Amino acid sequence: MHQSQTQVEVRYAETDQMGVVHHATYLIWFEVGRAQFIKDLGFSYAQMEEDGFLAPVTDITISYKRPFRYGETAEIRTWLENYNGIRSVYGYGIYNEKDELCISGTSTHVLVNKETFKPVRMKKVLPLWHDAYQNALGSYKKAIKEG
Amino acid sequence: MHQSQTQVEVRYAETDQMGVVHHATYLIWFEVGRAQFIKDLGFSYAQMEEDGFLAPVTDITISYKRPFRYGETAEIRTWLENYNGIRSVYGYGIYNEKDELCISGTSTHVLVNKETFKPVRMKKVLPLWHDAYQNALGSYKKAIKEG
Amino acid sequence: MHQSQTQVEVRYAETDQMGVVHHATYLIWFEVGRAQFIKDLGFSYAQMEEDGFLAPVTDITISYKRPFRYGETAEIRTWLENYNGIRSVYGYGIYNEKDELCISGTSTHVLVNKETFKPVRMKKVLPLWHDAYQNALGSYKKAIKEG
Amino acid sequence: MHQSQTQVEVRYAETDQMGVVHHATYLIWFEVGRAQFIKDLGFSYAQMEEDGFLAPVTDITISYKRPFRYGETAEIRTWLENYNGIRSVYGYGIYNEKDELCISGTSTHVLVNKETFKPVRMKKVLPLWHDAYQNALGSYKKAIKEG
Repeated sequence: MHQSQTQVEVRYAETDQMGVVHHATYLIWFEVGRAQFIKDLGFSYAQMEEDGFLAPVTDITISYKRPFRYGETAEIRTWLENYNGIRSVYGYGIYNEKDELCISGTSTHVLVNKETFKPVRMKKVLPLWHDAYQNALGSYKKAIKEG
Repeated sequence: MHQSQTQVEVRYAETDQMGVVHHATYLIWFEVGRAQFIKDLGFSYAQMEEDGFLAPVTDITISYKRPFRYGETAEIRTWLENYNGIRSVYGYGIYNEKDELCISGTSTHVLVNKETFKPVRMKKVLPLWHDAYQNALGSYKKAIKEG
Repeated sequence: MHQSQTQVEVRYAETDQMGVVHHATYLIWFEVGRAQFIKDLGFSYAQMEEDGFLAPVTDITISYKRPFRYGETAEIRTWLENYNGIRSVYGYGIYNEKDELCISGTSTHVLVNKETFKPVRMKKVLPLWHDAYQNALGSYKKAIKEG
Repeated sequence: MHQSQTQVEVRYAETDQMGVVHHATYLIWFEVGRAQFIKDLGFSYAQMEEDGFLAPVTDITISYKRPFRYGETAEIRTWLENYNGIRSVYGYGIYNEKDELCISGTSTHVLVNKETFKPVRMKKVLPLWHDAYQNALGSYKKAIKEG
């Protein structure tokens, strides 16, 4: 597995007076995609927080190619673009029903202790996640290479 | 003091494709009004949470008379409509720049322990708040009576 | 059919620092439930707007019995509680995975012309909707009566 | 003038269960900063839309250095980082009360016709804006140069 898929229907509240989905909404859809990616690896973000860790965002880049409108369904595709034991970089593509890429972006996260907000090494505190992330990255890099 | 005032400018993200402020936004504006009311009494909601209490909402009623649009400034007026030591009921009126009442509503809250979510008596855990709330309610009831 | 069902997974962005879903979020979930109700009747809210009409909210009541948390899935049940040709009142119950009622409420809507925001009679401008709404109301009233 | 300032108080609804402002919120604050920048130049974004134009976002980059918490006030500083007659790139820095840079980022916009979503040249359709943007960019470049 190197890419997760999940679908969202545009909510009316997500539109703005331009008649399209407000651009901040897609960061929330990225988050939905990220949760699905983690679920597909066999883990749960909610459980990770209960276990005492958080994965705050340090950087986001996002490009808006085509807007979504109310009534449409979006497919969020999420993969692991980079992972070095400290930082995870997720990649995202959001596609419309014609399979056109509408939104693309990345988000970078560090794993921190819930109480102190100090960075921790995933390998040390969540070794099973670490292994799964290395595999996910490997299969992504391989897919990129093979085109 | 029986009524607090605070102003918000409509944010673009708060509009929807109807071209007006999305109706869920006003609950957030009520929250802004409530924080101002508490500040005007000399307290801080943020501090109250740090002290170990939360004031979750149990009920809301809201009537939409006139919509707000992007570019407009709204005045949120907040008062204490009822308080019995356990439940606080805040009243809200949101006015446009012509001083027309656009949105009105109420929210009911209970004070609970942050860890257990169990209700607590304000008089016991926050006696200064209790006194201020009784005074605020008294001055509101008096104002209502005198019309 | 007198009740529609649809499910939403709690989004991280929907939580607040109380650790539960922020209370304004449920108005957006009501909206999701309402769209499903209309879809189940064989119509589309998006299409209705394209046809030149809007259905703004005039009143909402909402009661919060149990909070939702991140990681949970909610089932939104929606029905037509009242309809008189001008005003539609939808009823909502939001249930957790243990089938406990967590959130209940109603929303009242009028049908208006998109350009003028003036109320219009559904029977006149959307006769098929009118018939379906009368049937939906009838089956709801009947279900209530029969308990 | 090469930088605009405006302040926002953190709203409770803007926090998430991490206990800090949710990362998507800052895109809305950027939007608030952008509106202030335009206002400081003597124009109005709302008026621009009424005149038949929109300025959708094509790209955003954002870095999260320090989180904001409920109870805090943020200062949003906004400037014009680039402008070529077609694309405008705004720069943002969001500072806490200790004057520490917490959030930084950029947003890129194109001016489009409201009906067709086709790009238009600002110089042609909004010549006064064009002049003001060229001046704002000049004073920003000059300030950068002079350190």
